[in-house]
Amino acid sequence: MEELATEKEAEESHRQDSVSLLTFILLLTLTILTIWLFKHRRVRFLHETGLAMIYGLIVGVILRYGTPSTSGRDKPISCSQEDRLFTTLLVNVSGKFFEYTLKGEISPGKIHNVEQNDMLRKVTFDPEVFFNILLPPIIFHAGYSLKKRHFFRNLGSILAYAFLGTAVSCFIIGNLMYGVVKLMKLVGQLSDKFYYTDCLLFGAIISATDPVTVLAIFNELHADVDLYALLFGESVLNDAVAIVLSSSIVAYQPTGENTHAFDAAAFFKSVGVFLGIFSGSFMMGAVTGVVTALVTKFTKLHCFPLLETALFFLMSWSTFLLAEACGFTGVVAVLFCGITQAHYTYNNLSVESRSRTKQLFEVLHFLAENFIFSYMGLALFTFQKHIFSPVFIIGAFIAIFLGRAAHIYPLSFLLNLGRRHKISWNFQHMMMFSGLRGAMAFALAIRDTATYSHQMMFSTTLLIVFFTVWIVGGGTTPMLSWLNIRVGVDPDQDPPPTNDSFQVLQGDGPDSERRNRTQQESAWLFRLWYSFDHNYLKPILTHSGPPLTTTLPSWCGLIARCLTSPQVYDNQEQLREEDSDFILNDGDLTVTYGDTTITANGSSGPHTATTSLDGRRTKSSSEEALERDLGAADHEVTSRGTRLVFPLEDNA
Amino acid sequence: MEELATEKEAEESHRQDSVSLLTFILLLTLTILTIWLFKHRRVRFLHETGLAMIYGLIVGVILRYGTPSTSGRDKPISCSQEDRLFTTLLVNVSGKFFEYTLKGEISPGKIHNVEQNDMLRKVTFDPEVFFNILLPPIIFHAGYSLKKRHFFRNLGSILAYAFLGTAVSCFIIGNLMYGVVKLMKLVGQLSDKFYYTDCLLFGAIISATDPVTVLAIFNELHADVDLYALLFGESVLNDAVAIVLSSSIVAYQPTGENTHAFDAAAFFKSVGVFLGIFSGSFMMGAVTGVVTALVTKFTKLHCFPLLETALFFLMSWSTFLLAEACGFTGVVAVLFCGITQAHYTYNNLSVESRSRTKQLFEVLHFLAENFIFSYMGLALFTFQKHIFSPVFIIGAFIAIFLGRAAHIYPLSFLLNLGRRHKISWNFQHMMMFSGLRGAMAFALAIRDTATYSHQMMFSTTLLIVFFTVWIVGGGTTPMLSWLNIRVGVDPDQDPPPTNDSFQVLQGDGPDSERRNRTQQESAWLFRLWYSFDHNYLKPILTHSGPPLTTTLPSWCGLIARCLTSPQVYDNQEQLREEDSDFILNDGDLTVTYGDTTITANGSSGPHTATTSLDGRRTKSSSEEALERDLGAADHEVTSRGTRLVFPLEDNA
Repeated sequence: MEELATEKEAEESHRQDSVSLLTFILLLTLTILTIWLFKHRRVRFLHETGLAMIYGLIVGVILRYGTPSTSGRDKPISCSQEDRLFTTLLVNVSGKFFEYTLKGEISPGKIHNVEQNDMLRKVTFDPEVFFNILLPPIIFHAGYSLKKRHFFRNLGSILAYAFLGTAVSCFIIGNLMYGVVKLMKLVGQLSDKFYYTDCLLFGAIISATDPVTVLAIFNELHADVDLYALLFGESVLNDAVAIVLSSSIVAYQPTGENTHAFDAAAFFKSVGVFLGIFSGSFMMGAVTGVVTALVTKFTKLHCFPLLETALFFLMSWSTFLLAEACGFTGVVAVLFCGITQAHYTYNNLSVESRSRTKQLFEVLHFLAENFIFSYMGLALFTFQKHIFSPVFIIGAFIAIFLGRAAHIYPLSFLLNLGRRHKISWNFQHMMMFSGLRGAMAFALAIRDTATYSHQMMFSTTLLIVFFTVWIVGGGTTPMLSWLNIRVGVDPDQDPPPTNDSFQVLQGDGPDSERRNRTQQESAWLFRLWYSFDHNYLKPILTHSGPPLTTTLPSWCGLIARCLTSPQVYDNQEQLREEDSDFILNDGDLTVTYGDTTITANGSSGPHTATTSLDGRRTKSSSEEALERDLGAADHEVTSRGTRLVFPLEDNA
Repeated sequence: MEELATEKEAEESHRQDSVSLLTFILLLTLTILTIWLFKHRRVRFLHETGLAMIYGLIVGVILRYGTPSTSGRDKPISCSQEDRLFTTLLVNVSGKFFEYTLKGEISPGKIHNVEQNDMLRKVTFDPEVFFNILLPPIIFHAGYSLKKRHFFRNLGSILAYAFLGTAVSCFIIGNLMYGVVKLMKLVGQLSDKFYYTDCLLFGAIISATDPVTVLAIFNELHADVDLYALLFGESVLNDAVAIVLSSSIVAYQPTGENTHAFDAAAFFKSVGVFLGIFSGSFMMGAVTGVVTALVTKFTKLHCFPLLETALFFLMSWSTFLLAEACGFTGVVAVLFCGITQAHYTYNNLSVESRSRTKQLFEVLHFLAENFIFSYMGLALFTFQKHIFSPVFIIGAFIAIFLGRAAHIYPLSFLLNLGRRHKISWNFQHMMMFSGLRGAMAFALAIRDTATYSHQMMFSTTLLIVFFTVWIVGGGTTPMLSWLNIRVGVDPDQDPPPTNDSFQVLQGDGPDSERRNRTQQESAWLFRLWYSFDHNYLKPILTHSGPPLTTTLPSWCGLIARCLTSPQVYDNQEQLREEDSDFILNDGDLTVTYGDTTITANGSSGPHTATTSLDGRRTKSSSEEALERDLGAADHEVTSRGTRLVFPLEDNA
């Protein structure tokens, strides 16, 4: 009888799991259908992520107020005689042994909530799910779909915004929030501890920008490519910075009695942790990317696209696990793995695998992102430990505004001192405006909601995500028009606009002038890296580039011969054509959110390339290759959705 | 301090999780690379699944004997004062509350094993993982990639083998094993209870055949298509039958004192459960398939392939969850959902989505299958409750041999009475030989390993899977040659072999003769269904078929006009061409394991179709459509791997 009851209970629990997962799937299905309707009717004031949140909110309300509050099958208190914590418990129930596993600590005040509502608990995911299952495909996809040409042209500025900017923003928001917390203490609004480190952690969490909505609209309207590159590059890298930054803040553990006072040793240890984790994760991602490139280069795996795709998927995933197993940050490793895979491995894949891998990660990314956003909507009502403090929330909104302003404008000023193509005021305003928060901020905030301060931070983050996604998402098109930012830009042939200081390179001018400009524009560090990459890394890791036998010193002859792909020798005459193929295929990686989902047929790329670039190739130095890379047509496949007739085009 | 220790412990546990997942991923990576090597060198004596098992075995040995036996952080005995079982425990450890969740019962003799080795426990998955995560993509893929033409031509025989055959096999194996158990009791080899229902359950578990290896080799060698259809169809449906059969046997619970005696009421209840679960799951799968077809037909979702693919994926997955939530069998529902999606929804998808969905499920299927097989290898050493009984194992091997013989030969004899194209002796021997066991048997066996009898059954199943996969996998090519089964068959134009009683339809004979034969061949039930499908379902659910306004009675005029796709009216003249497009695209679904991974370019199909079928179309009755469907070219894209020069071709 007892056995039967247990079985029935397990079955019931399994059924409830199915129902809660089904809820999310139906939510996503509904979102997809509405997205289609919006796209079909060209509704642009609400992005799909905003929509997913709204549906999540509605379902959250229904679950919260519509389902009966079941008294849990929990056993509230027992076994208090032990003084050590175990990960597994064996419980003897009338002669039978049952195994229990540790789920986590519950703060004593919340014990009653635990037994409140079974359904609410079922739809509440373990925060680890976000970090280990949902974020990796999103981040990998971001790395894998990086528009390389514009990204590398603005690399210096992007790195500055991502590293310096995020640090500045984190510090400023942290300090402002500490002021708010002090104020709350004075007014008596704070009922529990809130330390300075908590404020800094909040700064790190909320500094991760995620302008997915803005970028989707940019893509749809073909807005300025350099602004797109700056925003996209910043947001991708700043996720990585924010995540490592928050880990280092958590790792800040002063030794003395007062564990929340400043301690120089602990501070420098935290800085060390930041540098260690970041560079370790970076290395880890780059190394697996390189290993995948080598494997796909030296085996003829491309004859079997299924095997190739599976290998690619597994290697990319193993980056994440490897980094986690070594104590680094898997998400950051996956980002750099994605960039490496796009830069090297992608060239070695068969045409079929290229489209397969792109589409696979595109679908995973789409599902994961919409899931996170609808979960956010749901969490507003189903999460059981919300602490909404009006003062803190208002303070936070002001702080993120000031924090973003305090890094965009000064940094842009400093960068403009060194940049040939200045970042105009309009661009700065647009970057300022695009600082909305999304999936990463949410995942970081939900990671630890054990204490009072963390719960308040989580609730505030949720509200910030809602409002920035809705308001900024809806306001992007008017803002673009108001700031006079060019839309309908064809990244291939646009002439440099006369009234804009942000000059675009590919003019119709003669070759020498173009090279000259390219040289001036690129920093020496970037040029150094580029020539190293072009002369050594590309030939070693891919089938393209000059043969190593010509670039390596003669005493490495044997190694050079072994490492150089036979294709390079075979096609040495057509080398330049091939190289440009790869460049174009790289550019082809552009995967978009909007109407312009790019068709998988990469085969049309090379032909266009050969025709358009045919006349220019006269020598094969890395200089010229660099110039080609930077100037080469990005080959944006036109979408099958119609280009919208937009009021902006009258203004332009 | 305590808090820190808990955090450290959680971190350590997370790291170990990563390491164990990483182990599996590296295992799969290794398998993929070796598969490539084998394919590259045309090694055919070992299939990839066999290979995955061998690697699993090796890693299992290393984990078992190579890692130190850590003393677990478990707490062996406590809290024995309670008399009720709870799914959640709250434990008070020095003032802090921790939540524990129930994992399952542990037999008292195994308590010491539990604390044996952390690493071994980490790599041991929850059996639910197999049922809820790994099996669905495998089964869905099987349904989605069904070769429709040959499948439907042999539908009667396939259903007979799958339903009657599995039931017979289950009953015979169950009874033989009961004899073996009796014998073991006599000799004193049995140390615990082993009931008749356990034996029947073993019969059901082990009756699920999985000739993945055989089919892969068939595909590679282009062996006879009808034999392929029989084997594939049987194995796909018999998985569904076996899973429902085992559930009904578990549900067999006599009411009286002696819970393992025969009870007519309980028996009929079990039969009712079987019929209920099977038809319920079937309905569930068909309904979601139909809903997806309607959604994709009546929205213009195909303009956005990403949305379409995501919707398709979610709807197919929701079938599984819906069935589980309703108490049916998700895996079975997913199978029929796959068949419905392939038959209807596939026609509504955009060209891009067709290849996307195929490739997505192909990759998922490939990864899941290889994961299960390598896990099987691992489980032989890491599973901690093995009971190997030589008598039982030998008995089981004899029983599965006899069980398969007792359904293949008599059923084939009976079927041949009604079949126009007899199933020859050679085919029967080949079917007999191909009865190897795989993923489904393993998943069913690992589902419940709580009792002595189930543990013995699990260990035996594992050994049976190993030996059948290795021996049958390696012996398929010699067997084909020995049984004189045609290889290198081109399913499109093969002339009927003169010496074989299994005549193939597509001859060069005149139209009337062909139709005649087709009519004779098809059973009336099938013809009824076909005309219903062609006249009503296809026009309602897809863009093909005759307009409903012509097939429905005139009083349904309004509904007919609403439901008929505008495309049908627009293209009414080109209707037949379009229809044949779809047929060919259906045939194109053939996704293979071997060298012949078919390229995703469905676009070449229609052209061939239009040319090859052009002359024949004169009227559009469902009769002729049926004939076209059955006779139409299957359009097998030739692989890029070379066709092997095989000794068989000398014999033929």
